[in-house]
Amino acid sequence: MSEPLVLTLSCADRPGITARVASFLFERGGNILEAQQFNDRGSDAFFMRVEFDPGSTGRERLRSDFASIAGEFAMEWKLALRDRPRRVLLMVSKFDHCLADLLYRWRIGELAMEPVAIISNHPRDAIGHTDIGSVPFHHLPITRETKAAQEAEVRRIAQECDAELVVLARYMQILSDDQAAHFAGRCVNIHHSFLPGFKGAKPYHQAYERGVKMIGASAHYVTADLDEGPIIHQSAEPISHADSPDELVRKGREIESRVLAEAVRLHLEERVLLNGKRTVVFRS
Amino acid sequence: MSEPLVLTLSCADRPGITARVASFLFERGGNILEAQQFNDRGSDAFFMRVEFDPGSTGRERLRSDFASIAGEFAMEWKLALRDRPRRVLLMVSKFDHCLADLLYRWRIGELAMEPVAIISNHPRDAIGHTDIGSVPFHHLPITRETKAAQEAEVRRIAQECDAELVVLARYMQILSDDQAAHFAGRCVNIHHSFLPGFKGAKPYHQAYERGVKMIGASAHYVTADLDEGPIIHQSAEPISHADSPDELVRKGREIESRVLAEAVRLHLEERVLLNGKRTVVFRS
Amino acid sequence: MSEPLVLTLSCADRPGITARVASFLFERGGNILEAQQFNDRGSDAFFMRVEFDPGSTGRERLRSDFASIAGEFAMEWKLALRDRPRRVLLMVSKFDHCLADLLYRWRIGELAMEPVAIISNHPRDAIGHTDIGSVPFHHLPITRETKAAQEAEVRRIAQECDAELVVLARYMQILSDDQAAHFAGRCVNIHHSFLPGFKGAKPYHQAYERGVKMIGASAHYVTADLDEGPIIHQSAEPISHADSPDELVRKGREIESRVLAEAVRLHLEERVLLNGKRTVVFRS
Amino acid sequence: MSEPLVLTLSCADRPGITARVASFLFERGGNILEAQQFNDRGSDAFFMRVEFDPGSTGRERLRSDFASIAGEFAMEWKLALRDRPRRVLLMVSKFDHCLADLLYRWRIGELAMEPVAIISNHPRDAIGHTDIGSVPFHHLPITRETKAAQEAEVRRIAQECDAELVVLARYMQILSDDQAAHFAGRCVNIHHSFLPGFKGAKPYHQAYERGVKMIGASAHYVTADLDEGPIIHQSAEPISHADSPDELVRKGREIESRVLAEAVRLHLEERVLLNGKRTVVFRS
Repeated sequence: MSEPLVLTLSCADRPGITARVASFLFERGGNILEAQQFNDRGSDAFFMRVEFDPGSTGRERLRSDFASIAGEFAMEWKLALRDRPRRVLLMVSKFDHCLADLLYRWRIGELAMEPVAIISNHPRDAIGHTDIGSVPFHHLPITRETKAAQEAEVRRIAQECDAELVVLARYMQILSDDQAAHFAGRCVNIHHSFLPGFKGAKPYHQAYERGVKMIGASAHYVTADLDEGPIIHQSAEPISHADSPDELVRKGREIESRVLAEAVRLHLEERVLLNGKRTVVFRS
Repeated sequence: MSEPLVLTLSCADRPGITARVASFLFERGGNILEAQQFNDRGSDAFFMRVEFDPGSTGRERLRSDFASIAGEFAMEWKLALRDRPRRVLLMVSKFDHCLADLLYRWRIGELAMEPVAIISNHPRDAIGHTDIGSVPFHHLPITRETKAAQEAEVRRIAQECDAELVVLARYMQILSDDQAAHFAGRCVNIHHSFLPGFKGAKPYHQAYERGVKMIGASAHYVTADLDEGPIIHQSAEPISHADSPDELVRKGREIESRVLAEAVRLHLEERVLLNGKRTVVFRS
Repeated sequence: MSEPLVLTLSCADRPGITARVASFLFERGGNILEAQQFNDRGSDAFFMRVEFDPGSTGRERLRSDFASIAGEFAMEWKLALRDRPRRVLLMVSKFDHCLADLLYRWRIGELAMEPVAIISNHPRDAIGHTDIGSVPFHHLPITRETKAAQEAEVRRIAQECDAELVVLARYMQILSDDQAAHFAGRCVNIHHSFLPGFKGAKPYHQAYERGVKMIGASAHYVTADLDEGPIIHQSAEPISHADSPDELVRKGREIESRVLAEAVRLHLEERVLLNGKRTVVFRS
Repeated sequence: MSEPLVLTLSCADRPGITARVASFLFERGGNILEAQQFNDRGSDAFFMRVEFDPGSTGRERLRSDFASIAGEFAMEWKLALRDRPRRVLLMVSKFDHCLADLLYRWRIGELAMEPVAIISNHPRDAIGHTDIGSVPFHHLPITRETKAAQEAEVRRIAQECDAELVVLARYMQILSDDQAAHFAGRCVNIHHSFLPGFKGAKPYHQAYERGVKMIGASAHYVTADLDEGPIIHQSAEPISHADSPDELVRKGREIESRVLAEAVRLHLEERVLLNGKRTVVFRS
C-alpha cells in the first residue's frame, strides 16, 4: 500500500459530486479506505472526506489533476498525507492539565502531531507538573501595553516553526481580533464551560451560583469573539448540590482534557470542516 | 411496620442537629429507613431528609413534639406520609410527549401521584395521542386579554382539586409573576433546553444555528423569570452536524420526557429542598 | 422532488464500488440526499447506504438496471421507498412499557411504521396500561406442549399481515431455533441487560447481586441463541449501592424503551446492515 | 478548626445507631461537616461515613471512647485523619496511561496520596512515557517459577514502605490467591472491560468480535478471582462498527484512566465500604 492520502472538500451541493470524486480516484488507481459525505440541506452545501490508498499515482499528479474538478465545482479542498504528523504549537497559562494530557497522548503515539513549541505567558515553573521534554518553551509575558508585541512574537514563532495548528490549552488570554483572524481555522481553544452557557470568566463559579446539575466543556475554533467560534466537540457530566466550586473545577479538568484532546485529534486527522459558524465533523 | 414517614428540614447549620433529630426519632420508637444530610459550607445552611418507620408513635404526636425542636433551630420543615400519592395538576399545550410519559408512569405505579386534573390552553383534540383516561380535562384558552382570568381559573381548579403540585408538561405559556409566586415551590416546568443556554423560544433552532454538539433539557421550579428558576434535574445527549432542527426536536422529546419525569419523581418523594436559587436533591 | 429511495448494499470490498454506484445514480438523474459507506478492513467487506431523489427514473427501471452492477460485485442489496411506513408486528408479554413507547412514537409520526398486529402470550388485560387503539390484538397463549403450534400461528399472522419486521417488545418467550431462523434479520429483540453481561433470566437481580455500578439494555436481531444475536444498539446508566432490584427494574424500563425505539427506528430507516455476527449502523 | 477526621463504620442495622453516633460526636464538641448513611434493607446492614471537626477532643480520646459504642453494636469501624495523604504503592506493566494519570493528579494535589513506590514486572524503560520523578522504582520480573518469590518481594516492599493501598494500574499479572488475600480490601485493580462482560484476556478484541456498541472499564478490589472482586466504579462509552480493535484500545485507555482515578480517590477519601461482594460508595 502507498502512503494513504486524505482528501477533504466542500462546495455548493449539486448532483454528481460523489460520482465525480469517486470516479476520479478509481480511474487513477486509488482505493478508498474510508469515506464520508454530508449533504447539508439547510444551506445546500456539500462536504466530503475521503481516505484513500493512491496506488501508483503520485500525490502531485493527483493534486494537479483534481484542480480542474475542484474548479468546476468551485470547491474548497485539501489533499494531504493522512499519517504525517502535523506541526503543532501549544499555548498555555498556569493550568497545565490539558497540556500534560496532550503531550502524553503524543508520546504514546495516539495523536499524530509534532509539538514544535510551547508558549506561555507565565514562566516555565508555572507548569512544573508537566514533563515537556525537549519541546522548546517560550515565555512570552503579556500586559495590556505589550499585547500587540507579544502577539507578533507568537506569530513569528508560529511561522518559524511552520506550525499548522495552534492549540490554546487553557491559555487564559483573549486573542486580539487580528490575531484570531491570523490563525482562523487553525487555532483550537478549550472553553471551560458548556457553551453557550457561562461565557466569560470563572464559568465553574457561575455554574455553582446558578445551581446547574451538569457541567461541561467546549472545544472550538478561535474567532474574534472568544465564546462564539465554531464548536468542534463538547461533553458534559452530572454534578450535585454537594459539589463546591473547587470540586467543579476538579471535575472540569477531566472534561476539558478529554474534550480538547478529541478536538485536536479530529482536526489532526482532517475530520473537521467549517460550515459557516458551525462545523462538520466526520468521525470514523 | 407502620406507614413510613418522611421528614425534611432545613436551617442554619450548627453542631448537634443530626444528633437531636436522630435522638428524637429513636426516643419515640422510630426506625430510620433512609437518611441524607447536606452541610452547605458555602451558605452555612443545613438540609436533611429522613425516611422512617414511626413505630407506635402517631404522626400528629410526632408533629407536635418535633415543633419544639424545629422552633429551637428555626427550621423550615415538613413531616409527610412517604407513600401517599400526591395530588398533581398537569398542564399542557400541543406537545403531549411529557404528559403521555407521566401518565404511563403513573398507571404502572412508578410515580406516586394522583393526577387530579389536566389543563390545556388547547382543546382536548390537540393532545389526541394521549390516553388521559378519566382524568378531568379543562380547556382554558388564553389570550393577552384573558390571561388574568385564565390564571385565576387555573388557581381555582388547583384549589378545588387540592393540588399539591403543578407540572407544566410543555405548557407553552409564561406564567404571570403573580401566578408564579402563587405556586412557588410547587410548580415544576420542563425547559426544552440545557439552561442557561438557549433561553427563550425555539431552543432547538437556536442550538442548530449555534452548531452545538450536545442538546439537553432542564426541569426547574417556576419563578417569575421562567428561565431562571431553581434547577432540579438536567440531562444532555450528543448530536451531530447531520441533525436538522427537526431531528433535534425528536431527540429533545426523549430527553424532556425523561428529565421531567425524574424531577417529578424527586419532588413527589420529597427529595428536593430549596436552597436559595439552587436546589438540594437527595437521591437514594 | 420524486419520492426518495434508499439503496443499501454489501459485498466484498474492492476498488471502484463507490464510483460505480454514484455514477449509476448520477447518470440516471438521481440526486444523493445522504450517503454513508464502511470499508471493513477486518473482513474486507464493503457496506453502503444511499438516500436519493431518483428524479424521473422509475423505481422498477432503477432496480432492473442496478441488478447488473449488483451481479458484477456479488452484492446483497435492497432498493426501497425511504418514507413508506414499514409493516410491523409487535409481540409483548406482561411488561408493556416498550410497547406503549413504540405506539406513542408511531402516533406522533416519529416512527415510520404501521403496526399491523400485536401478539401476546397473555390476555389483552395484561397490558391494560397501553392504548393499542385499533391495532388488532391476538392472544396466543403458549405452553411447552403448544409452542410449535403457537409459533406456527405467529408465522401465519405475520404472513397474513405481510409484516416486514417483528419487534419483541419484552416478549418473554424464547423463540425456537426454527422460528428464529424464519424471522432472521427481520426480528428485533430488547434484552433487558447490557450484553454480554447477565445473560439469561432476571438480569437486574443478577446485576444487583454482582454489585455493578451501571446497568444497561441491548437491542439485537434474534438468532437461535437469544443472548447472542447481532447487537444494533445499547445504552447504560450509572446506578448506586442504594438501588434495590426493584429500583434497577424501574431504571431499566427507561433504558429498555429508549434502546428498543432507537433500534426499531434504525431498522425502519434501513440503517442497519448485517456483518456476520455484528452490525453496521449508518446513523445520519 | 481542628484537623478534620473521618469515621466510617458498618454493623447490623437496628434503631438508634445514627442517634448514638451523632450524639457521641456532639457531646465531645464535634461538628459534622459531611455525613452519609445507608440502611441496606436487603442484608439488614448499616453503613455510615462522617467527616467532622473534632473540636478540642483529641483523636486518641475519641478512638477509645468510641470503642465502647462500636463494641455494643459490633461495628467494623475506622477513625482517620481526613486530609492525611495515604501511602500508596503503584504497580504497572507496559501500559502506563493509568500510572501517568494518577501521578499527574497527585502532583497537582487532586489525589491525597503519597506514592511510596512503583513496582513493575518490566524495566524502567517500559514506562518511559511517564515522569515518575523521585518515586522509587522497583523492577521485579516475574515468571511462573519466580512468582512466589516475586510476590514475597512485593509484600516486603509494601511493608517496608508502610503502604496503605496497592493500586494495580494496568499490572498485567494475576495475583496468587495468597497475595490477593494478603492485600484484601486495600488493593484496587482496573479491569479493562465492563465487568461482568469480557472477563479474561484481550477484552477489547472480545468486544470487537462480539460487536457490542459500548465499551467500558471497571475498578474493583482484588480478590482471588481477578474478575470477581467488589466493584467500586464503572464507566462506559458508545462505540461504532467503524472502531477497529486498536481504536477500542485507544478509547479504552481514556475510560480506564478515568475510572481508576475515581476509584482511587474514593478509596483514599474513605468513601468505599465493603458490603459482602459489593461495595457501598458514599459520594459527596
